[in-house]
Amino acid sequence: MIMSKNELQERYAAFIENATEEEQNVMEEMIRGWEGKREGQYYSFVGSWLQTNRNWKDDETYEVTIPLHKGLENPLSMVHGGVTATLLDSTMGGLANEITPEGKGSVTLEMKINYIKPGKGETLRCESKVISKSKSMIVTEGKVYNDDNQVIAFGSGTFYIINLK
Amino acid sequence: MIMSKNELQERYAAFIENATEEEQNVMEEMIRGWEGKREGQYYSFVGSWLQTNRNWKDDETYEVTIPLHKGLENPLSMVHGGVTATLLDSTMGGLANEITPEGKGSVTLEMKINYIKPGKGETLRCESKVISKSKSMIVTEGKVYNDDNQVIAFGSGTFYIINLK
Amino acid sequence: MIMSKNELQERYAAFIENATEEEQNVMEEMIRGWEGKREGQYYSFVGSWLQTNRNWKDDETYEVTIPLHKGLENPLSMVHGGVTATLLDSTMGGLANEITPEGKGSVTLEMKINYIKPGKGETLRCESKVISKSKSMIVTEGKVYNDDNQVIAFGSGTFYIINLK
Amino acid sequence: MIMSKNELQERYAAFIENATEEEQNVMEEMIRGWEGKREGQYYSFVGSWLQTNRNWKDDETYEVTIPLHKGLENPLSMVHGGVTATLLDSTMGGLANEITPEGKGSVTLEMKINYIKPGKGETLRCESKVISKSKSMIVTEGKVYNDDNQVIAFGSGTFYIINLK
Repeated sequence: MIMSKNELQERYAAFIENATEEEQNVMEEMIRGWEGKREGQYYSFVGSWLQTNRNWKDDETYEVTIPLHKGLENPLSMVHGGVTATLLDSTMGGLANEITPEGKGSVTLEMKINYIKPGKGETLRCESKVISKSKSMIVTEGKVYNDDNQVIAFGSGTFYIINLK
Repeated sequence: MIMSKNELQERYAAFIENATEEEQNVMEEMIRGWEGKREGQYYSFVGSWLQTNRNWKDDETYEVTIPLHKGLENPLSMVHGGVTATLLDSTMGGLANEITPEGKGSVTLEMKINYIKPGKGETLRCESKVISKSKSMIVTEGKVYNDDNQVIAFGSGTFYIINLK
Repeated sequence: MIMSKNELQERYAAFIENATEEEQNVMEEMIRGWEGKREGQYYSFVGSWLQTNRNWKDDETYEVTIPLHKGLENPLSMVHGGVTATLLDSTMGGLANEITPEGKGSVTLEMKINYIKPGKGETLRCESKVISKSKSMIVTEGKVYNDDNQVIAFGSGTFYIINLK
Repeated sequence: MIMSKNELQERYAAFIENATEEEQNVMEEMIRGWEGKREGQYYSFVGSWLQTNRNWKDDETYEVTIPLHKGLENPLSMVHGGVTATLLDSTMGGLANEITPEGKGSVTLEMKINYIKPGKGETLRCESKVISKSKSMIVTEGKVYNDDNQVIAFGSGTFYIINLK
């Protein structure tokens, strides 16, 4: 029931042919994300949508950076609040997973976000730290920075530790 | 500096040629979203990513429905928490915009989400209502339902009313 | 090491002797609360501080009403945000306890509050409803109303179900 | 219409006469708080209820410490969630007021609290820092510590800056 490759080829070719510059920009970022996922850079298609670049900044700080572009904006030409939320969830949840014991995973129980400044510029970077960790629960905080190292959003989240099978 | 149409054509054609079924599924949903945006169905590329279908359910309830697919999942094969967050922000923020006076807009000040059940199935539907409204601020709540009308997430948000120019 | 009854008698008598009208008002409410606790009206001294009046408004709505007075105000002469928070926690947590199985209790995992209007008047009334309930977790919402039935605060909370021994 | 001093004297004397050790303990703490308020130690009766001891720990950290006792417990003999919430609001809101320009004040717009460990021991100490500050809004975070310097609660809050007259 999935669209055939032939139809995908036609639909994408036709869409590119008539693409505005903005659409070209969005499509360029999307194909980079998809290619990156195929090469194993991202854990999920949501990760490839944001092109999440993950690493430990130091022993306590887990960091995810994403490039900004037209495809991540709201109608007011700032980063969409959902993008910032997804970045925070990915960073705080990524940190939770990193510190979860083998054979266990973690799911987001709740998350709160304060939007402080409009997200603009080349990249957003989210830094997350553990606030507390017990056998069943991890609480984290996260801060999202723009290119000038200004905090544009602040969040906290609770993650519940589950058995993976 | 944007990728040329020729290069986009080549990169997309090559990616489709080697696509797995999962990738085909994700690409099908993405092209539908992009085509829909070109036709004016979505206000932003984030809207086209989620294929948001917006309407007033009744006088008090603003509703956004999205189709679910592989492209919106986390590595545990449930809807990614960021998708649910984006849906809640889009619905509550959409409601805030709908009731904001002409010439004004609204931006998300803060949002909180409780994740209650894993998001699975064909669609997610978010219903949002106003809790309070003043000259400068709107507070809303939102509930996200699965196909069986079970609440899978609950959120609340504060929106700040701004002048659009 | 506790202050003797004699010393308590002296200290209270001296304090009352020099009491301002405001202090008299606060002391009157406090002794009512303490006497009520001794008679079994309140589950805790925090309950007696707020003089919480609990009942089911209907099958789905658990309600707690408190009288307002000088003792519950902040320096701006509105209800202190901590009072509203305590009322919300008592109501949502009270509801959680009411629906928790025999031999189990519930503890607050997290709570969020939106302050909408200054709390003023004779009483505050908090209504709470269950949003979701699983074996281990209850999510609730609560609204706080003033004498004119205006919502002055909105909250949501997550309660974790524990074994009582 | 306020209770006369004579009646207050009688009611308090009678209550003390029959007081349990627990009640004596609670009454001792309350009279200390009230006496302290009369001497100008606390800004409000809520402050005297908690016996808040305020100071700047360092240039960036505003700190409030309170003594714990029976009067601040819930029916499970831990610190009541409303006490922790009030402490967080007082500390974060106190910080917001400290950095608000002359002639302005601040009111809590929203607050979120994660309860991490049961509150027990001799004291609770809340440390708060500014996350962001604009002309109209201050965002803060706060951590509550027990005697062993373990984080027992984490919160964040948004404060709206208002003109005081």
